[in-house]
Amino acid sequence: MADTLSTVPAPPDLSPPDLSSWSCPLPLRDHPRVVMGHGGGGVMSAELIENLFLPAFGGAPADGLGDSAVLDLGGARLAFSTDSYVVRPLFFPGGSIGDLAVNGTVNDLAMSGARPAVLSCAVILEEGVETAVVGRIAQAMGDAARAAGVRIVTGDTKVVESGHGDGVYINTAGIGLVPPGIDIGPHRARPGDVVIVSGGIGLHGVAIMSMREGLEFGVEIASDSAPLGGLVQALLAAVPGVHALRDPTRGGLAASVNEIAAASGTGVVLQEGAVPVPPEVANACSVLGLDPLYVANEGKLVAFVARPDAEAALAALRAHPLGADATVIGECVGEHPGMVVARTTFGGTRVVDLPLGEQLPRIC
Amino acid sequence: MADTLSTVPAPPDLSPPDLSSWSCPLPLRDHPRVVMGHGGGGVMSAELIENLFLPAFGGAPADGLGDSAVLDLGGARLAFSTDSYVVRPLFFPGGSIGDLAVNGTVNDLAMSGARPAVLSCAVILEEGVETAVVGRIAQAMGDAARAAGVRIVTGDTKVVESGHGDGVYINTAGIGLVPPGIDIGPHRARPGDVVIVSGGIGLHGVAIMSMREGLEFGVEIASDSAPLGGLVQALLAAVPGVHALRDPTRGGLAASVNEIAAASGTGVVLQEGAVPVPPEVANACSVLGLDPLYVANEGKLVAFVARPDAEAALAALRAHPLGADATVIGECVGEHPGMVVARTTFGGTRVVDLPLGEQLPRIC
Repeated sequence: MADTLSTVPAPPDLSPPDLSSWSCPLPLRDHPRVVMGHGGGGVMSAELIENLFLPAFGGAPADGLGDSAVLDLGGARLAFSTDSYVVRPLFFPGGSIGDLAVNGTVNDLAMSGARPAVLSCAVILEEGVETAVVGRIAQAMGDAARAAGVRIVTGDTKVVESGHGDGVYINTAGIGLVPPGIDIGPHRARPGDVVIVSGGIGLHGVAIMSMREGLEFGVEIASDSAPLGGLVQALLAAVPGVHALRDPTRGGLAASVNEIAAASGTGVVLQEGAVPVPPEVANACSVLGLDPLYVANEGKLVAFVARPDAEAALAALRAHPLGADATVIGECVGEHPGMVVARTTFGGTRVVDLPLGEQLPRIC
Repeated sequence: MADTLSTVPAPPDLSPPDLSSWSCPLPLRDHPRVVMGHGGGGVMSAELIENLFLPAFGGAPADGLGDSAVLDLGGARLAFSTDSYVVRPLFFPGGSIGDLAVNGTVNDLAMSGARPAVLSCAVILEEGVETAVVGRIAQAMGDAARAAGVRIVTGDTKVVESGHGDGVYINTAGIGLVPPGIDIGPHRARPGDVVIVSGGIGLHGVAIMSMREGLEFGVEIASDSAPLGGLVQALLAAVPGVHALRDPTRGGLAASVNEIAAASGTGVVLQEGAVPVPPEVANACSVLGLDPLYVANEGKLVAFVARPDAEAALAALRAHPLGADATVIGECVGEHPGMVVARTTFGGTRVVDLPLGEQLPRIC
């Protein structure tokens, strides 16, 4: 979807809404049991991680929680990331759990500026799943790895009894190499940064939801599952000083932008009318009652760059097939630190908060 | 359990049994559906990996499938490994799924000679599991990581609906640094090598099985779950030229020795009477009808070293608390390449083959 913003927009009118009395609407701290929302990539996921895992593991890293950890090991600067994939159905328009498991981890590595190099593959199979299904998924993983330029070098296979899994769960972890001079992280966004998205949002989530619910919207909506390593390298070649990158998967663009706002302590203002929403996504979202800002993507990125770099960043993204529809959707401000607001097309302002739980469970 | 072999045994009498007509007793190639045995770490697991995953991923590495992949990246020589943990019950005498998930991957890294450095942690939680259970497991992971000298640096949390998991599944992947000059791999074993095990076998598997079946054997049998990085570094300091290392987990000592025999094309003769089996394990195995050679361990290693290095290797292992009961259990021979046989205490010979499927499902 092409947008009409070919240049960086003028700073929007900023009269922030009164947010002083806003607070989390639900009491979440005392969940005695895990609920689906804990896996949604929103507030509840963050609570589980921050209150339970991080203290046990020895605290959060000083530079915040990115999509990858970046560390120096044996003289190399490495990015290291992991994700488990529990998407259902296993096959959907535009992809499968197999290519998702490769692209998802490749993209997490790429968001630290790394060149993805190798992946691991660990599967948990449910007793009774057809071996032909496992074979198709393995083939999709191999094909996706070759397309992304990475090798799957180590793996593991476990089987659980029927009724204790859901066909196939896949974990991939990955290692990438961060080139010298690259320093990308959610904490590096700052007031004045321009927010860019690489293309139309919401395709992956709507594709899964349509398939799962047996809905049709006139045209088949295909997932945007794609490896973003090449797009990121093209962007970094033009703008080595990119501040922050995210691939907006679970929780969608809203979650990614909120995480960067929170980690950096900057406010973000999105221009709602500038966010590229493909017509089929807009149509499906209106039927399903979803907000496209919260719907998962698997082949898009959001970039925070200093304003003087914005034109070069846009040009570099648009010159790549996976970034042809890149566009500016907002900017960072000094007001309301850590909070994201959207200017609506009618001139109003609304808070775009981190989702609580999940709109669409088991999307990836 | 101390053994009585303080020196390397003389070569055993080798008149190999007639094995020319031996073949796999069950037709396995045409499983249309996954069965529990595909996750047992034996013949069926190998078939799934070799016939299905490896062709899709682009073939096996030239140096065989070790517990870790070893690769050069950015000038560093890295070991990279992954395992998913689906053990039940989640807590058992001597440990939990949490410390198992740390020790298991730390040990896989250590078996390539690497110093384990960092881990990822990805959990798949089942809706409804108590958050306090998740908290105890996270704490066990953090404690185990500190004990092993590794950091958990990146993670992921997914939730699946009740009835599609089993409380908690954990994947860990890990990266270690392989010191210069170390070249350890299953393909490097050769005739004349001595086979050493670091201590009494079978404790982990028997601990899990006893707990699961509600059996008692007079004394509580605790898992041997432990991190082996320090033990391996002590061994390598004494004998840098160790040929092959494995931690005999799923499939036990029999599977580990078979994998090394197959990868190296050497024959292996084990002295059954020399294999250290703690009395409580022997007792439990006789009640449960298990062969201790096939029972999982989580804190033991098997080492293949050249005969001139055997005394130094034994001394180094025995000087470490986790290797105090190290002992020689066999040797590599030129006969029956790729096959493992055991000399029984009565002077007979039996084939110790790779297990087909699982004796004990979901042991790790």
